[in-house]
Amino acid sequence: MIRTTFDQLTALLATILQKEGLDHLRAITCATIFAENTRDGVASHGVNRFVRFINQMRNGVIDIQAKPVLTGGFEAFEQWDGGHGIGPLNALAAVERAMELAKKHGMGAVALRNTTHWMRGATYGWHAASKGYPCICWTNTTANMPPWGTTTNVIGNNPIVLAIPAQPHPFVLDMAVSQFSYGKLETLRRNGEQLPYVGGFDKAGNLTTDPTEILATKRMLPVGMWKGSGLSIMLDLFASMLSGGSPTVSIPASEPNVSQLFIAFHAGLDTQERQARKEMVESAVRMMQDLCSEAGEHFPFPGEGTLRRRNQSDEDGIFVHPEVYQEILALKI
Amino acid sequence: MIRTTFDQLTALLATILQKEGLDHLRAITCATIFAENTRDGVASHGVNRFVRFINQMRNGVIDIQAKPVLTGGFEAFEQWDGGHGIGPLNALAAVERAMELAKKHGMGAVALRNTTHWMRGATYGWHAASKGYPCICWTNTTANMPPWGTTTNVIGNNPIVLAIPAQPHPFVLDMAVSQFSYGKLETLRRNGEQLPYVGGFDKAGNLTTDPTEILATKRMLPVGMWKGSGLSIMLDLFASMLSGGSPTVSIPASEPNVSQLFIAFHAGLDTQERQARKEMVESAVRMMQDLCSEAGEHFPFPGEGTLRRRNQSDEDGIFVHPEVYQEILALKI
Repeated sequence: MIRTTFDQLTALLATILQKEGLDHLRAITCATIFAENTRDGVASHGVNRFVRFINQMRNGVIDIQAKPVLTGGFEAFEQWDGGHGIGPLNALAAVERAMELAKKHGMGAVALRNTTHWMRGATYGWHAASKGYPCICWTNTTANMPPWGTTTNVIGNNPIVLAIPAQPHPFVLDMAVSQFSYGKLETLRRNGEQLPYVGGFDKAGNLTTDPTEILATKRMLPVGMWKGSGLSIMLDLFASMLSGGSPTVSIPASEPNVSQLFIAFHAGLDTQERQARKEMVESAVRMMQDLCSEAGEHFPFPGEGTLRRRNQSDEDGIFVHPEVYQEILALKI
Repeated sequence: MIRTTFDQLTALLATILQKEGLDHLRAITCATIFAENTRDGVASHGVNRFVRFINQMRNGVIDIQAKPVLTGGFEAFEQWDGGHGIGPLNALAAVERAMELAKKHGMGAVALRNTTHWMRGATYGWHAASKGYPCICWTNTTANMPPWGTTTNVIGNNPIVLAIPAQPHPFVLDMAVSQFSYGKLETLRRNGEQLPYVGGFDKAGNLTTDPTEILATKRMLPVGMWKGSGLSIMLDLFASMLSGGSPTVSIPASEPNVSQLFIAFHAGLDTQERQARKEMVESAVRMMQDLCSEAGEHFPFPGEGTLRRRNQSDEDGIFVHPEVYQEILALKI
């Protein structure tokens, strides 16, 4: 593996993005998101996807010049059109706008249409929560999962993020509504391994832990079976209806036109009360941790895996697969 | 089974509620919710729970005189204290207030603390969506589930509701974040049946479909395992933090002080555009239905079970278990 640092990686990616035509600030912001995702252990939406991201700029799926345009809304709620622009920059602008609206109106939401892949949803949750805003956001996706009881891929795995400010770190959940990701299935197949739990259906229509079978049928399992199936449908309808954008069933595989929703809360609390609420959250989590500890168990809080991998990267550096690194370097030429 | 009609059942329950001290309007409203839940096939949160509900009024868990009080907030966001009042009436008031805020500010939210069991969450989703408001709401609960990887019940099954207006009917998802309910486990145990899929852990710590084992260990399975575990934690922290109310870990089994969040959207759309958005949703669902139909399959939309049972009840009447009916009649005396 190639060992790099966060700053080196950001600088490398920013250089390439500037060469592709992004101005300095947008290049740095976008590079930072890809570097953060890699640092946090999500290389699949960091360095490992960077070449594909650049190729989507070059082949026109992503319009690098497009910026979100306000198309409607009223006070606390706004609709924006992403113009098929850069997904992570559009999403960052949208969550920041939702935070502004929340500060002004107690809460706020931005529905964003015609945007491209936001990479890692947690990015926007960490961003809002680290600035003191509880935040919920989600995206729809291309149709990559069958609704419960069918074999027809018409629903998406629509990742949803919930984030809450706290000290010393926010609590952030980032979950797709499929039980496993295609990335996970592919990794296990390459390694000749099975899933730890059933994650989809085989050709005979039975639930299986075999990634090869699931990749063949493309019948991924929604979280909680019929429940995640319904959740996927509702998240999709909410994001597309509120943004006036495309629902999953109308989104091509390259995902040039996904629909997203960003909700932020401010709640009109003064500084003192905001502090009290944060402490209330911290105390609730501590109580759950203590009760688990008494049983000799570990309370798994949302975001702990991210924090662990982030700290590891800060100590040891960020590791990039040599082939991926070479492909990224080649983009500089 | 005792066969009754919606109107007869509502009148019966309202009479009892008036006898308990509710004024006419509150009695009718509350009785209607219990009758609707029964009509929609959710007797567990309708007639089957009515005696317990009355007993909770009599033993002081529910304060029948309490009405929600505004405790804070700002423009689109408000906090209310339910004063341990009647859960369904508090929740109905909260969702109506969220709709008012949404009409005024594009979107709105009400965080409600110190309220009692809202019975069936879908009630409030159907209410908002049938009046044209997309709505998301959820409640926390007492600790009835262990977080993933533990055996310690410190998280709740926190039902969440997502509802979207459409014609000829809204789409409404009402899901607890446990894979199955305790009610379902108890019914299957009584009938000597197994769950259709694993729903919790046995004494040896293995996933099982045996309801008796799960009722003994009280280790219910969150939807999507680690994912539903994280979702439960975040829904709880959101509702308690935003309302300033109790988190799951501080809620007694009688649930006198749950925390809830109601979010409604209006989006500042004029009548014509609201109609266009509804049609967009209907068209997206039709496309998914058509694609499934082509494969000879049925697209399962959120709320279809409810609609089927509702229509059945409208045709055949509402059936109440004779023992339950006698117990309810006895409350009149």
